[in-house]
Amino acid sequence: MTAQIIDGKAVAAAVRNDVKEEVTKLRAKGIVPGLATVLVGARPDSMSYVTAKRQACAELGIESFPNELPETVSQAEVLALVNKLSADAKVNGILVQLPLPKHIDEESILNAVSINKDVDGFHPINVGKLGMKGREPLFAPCTPAGVIELLDRIGATISGSRAVVLGRSNIVGLPVSLLLLGRDATVTICHSRTKDLASVVRQADILVAAIGKPKFVTADMVKPGAYVIDVGVNSLPVLNPDGSQAISEKTGKPRTKLVGDVDFEAVKEVAAAITPVPGGVGPMTIAMLMKNTLRGAKAAHGIT
Amino acid sequence: MTAQIIDGKAVAAAVRNDVKEEVTKLRAKGIVPGLATVLVGARPDSMSYVTAKRQACAELGIESFPNELPETVSQAEVLALVNKLSADAKVNGILVQLPLPKHIDEESILNAVSINKDVDGFHPINVGKLGMKGREPLFAPCTPAGVIELLDRIGATISGSRAVVLGRSNIVGLPVSLLLLGRDATVTICHSRTKDLASVVRQADILVAAIGKPKFVTADMVKPGAYVIDVGVNSLPVLNPDGSQAISEKTGKPRTKLVGDVDFEAVKEVAAAITPVPGGVGPMTIAMLMKNTLRGAKAAHGIT
Repeated sequence: MTAQIIDGKAVAAAVRNDVKEEVTKLRAKGIVPGLATVLVGARPDSMSYVTAKRQACAELGIESFPNELPETVSQAEVLALVNKLSADAKVNGILVQLPLPKHIDEESILNAVSINKDVDGFHPINVGKLGMKGREPLFAPCTPAGVIELLDRIGATISGSRAVVLGRSNIVGLPVSLLLLGRDATVTICHSRTKDLASVVRQADILVAAIGKPKFVTADMVKPGAYVIDVGVNSLPVLNPDGSQAISEKTGKPRTKLVGDVDFEAVKEVAAAITPVPGGVGPMTIAMLMKNTLRGAKAAHGIT
Repeated sequence: MTAQIIDGKAVAAAVRNDVKEEVTKLRAKGIVPGLATVLVGARPDSMSYVTAKRQACAELGIESFPNELPETVSQAEVLALVNKLSADAKVNGILVQLPLPKHIDEESILNAVSINKDVDGFHPINVGKLGMKGREPLFAPCTPAGVIELLDRIGATISGSRAVVLGRSNIVGLPVSLLLLGRDATVTICHSRTKDLASVVRQADILVAAIGKPKFVTADMVKPGAYVIDVGVNSLPVLNPDGSQAISEKTGKPRTKLVGDVDFEAVKEVAAAITPVPGGVGPMTIAMLMKNTLRGAKAAHGIT
């Protein structure tokens, strides 16, 4: 049986559409949700992420407040900006694009983001509340929340399932584990020190892979009928038929392709459902960021 | 093979002795660590816990600042007290004895405790940091920290082990899971919704039971050679030989005994090491509270 291929673009479009409808209603009441982006330096990948986020805002009727600071900016200046945005009533979400330059202390910048505007969900207080019973954080981190949204929209049963999370990063592995736990899965968190990893992973009804190792999860590691969510985004060289590196005719640069942490072609013959890379979890991140910004705007105006 | 019986009293005494030595050194520098206790109402169990904590302070040279409020106190009054203690330089730790009366909102009271004095480690920001890479909380919750201390002192290898935590409470299950994860165990968190629990528990090299069900963990659920830490404290009736309830000659009341979540007598024949109840994890909680108060005092004076 070939797995259902989970169409992350379609799910993300549905989420964005839901957000757009709600934003339209808010605007009719005179409330305009606002997202501030903070970009330090000019990393091409960071610039393209920020651009995509701003485009999503424009499409959904969310006002964006772009802030671009030079690579050489001081810690104090970034902090002053974040404090200003935290105090600005028009701003309902603050997105500090990571990574920051090395001379900036990421932790203290992120801690300065008002927890009422922490749409990335990375503030320790939001992470703590994510795990604690009876403590709902205002924001769950976008990519982990996107993983749950995908599982829900394809009708996976999370409660009572065995969930295995590969990876324990602050951005994906830890928060997605806490979200799955909150939804009553029995959660196992694996990482580089895990022994006999294959046998642990094989117990998963729901497998979330987020370790950044291309095609690491092979078909023999997957329980037949499992739901496989691949958060990995790895760049691999494209090879010519003779095994040499393929070169782009347009750019003259080596050609690369994106692959996930899961050996998609083989695992899709075993799993019940699987996300492709690209086009699986990827599109969900921005969709959930928009949803979080909407949530921030509603909370700021006391709308539940 | 009969398991090593882990002597929590002895380990707790060793920890308290270490703390006492450090407190003596601090006092020689003119620094007196201080712990404030807040007791609302007159629950006999809460009163005896607070008394035990104050006695431990006295024994170790830590100054205690007792605060007792009537059951009928208002939310605002408790909050005002906690705010005053948070601002008091002599106070390095604030312990709000739980549970609070029902008309008091526990969450907002605990959130008012300065995170620099949150010796219970229950503030969401401390819980979040517990799970996050590169984010060390100032305080880990006392009982979970005591579990790790016991494992360390008996020489258990945590890194690379399979750890199973039974229970996901804010006070024990969740934080002990995060601590074990931080020590590179492969952690599985089980709870009331876990299916086929016995087979999951049987995978544990390290088993932490914290579900509050007397003698729930039976010998067949335990992997031979496992380390079993029993956090459960359950009260069972003592029966006469004829099966009737035994009555205390002294008090005339029904006799009870404390048992853990683990069937101690049977499991000790399977495990490598096991904590008894009482006398296992129990004594560690106050010892770790004293250690946290010392830590708070050192941090307040910039001593690492």
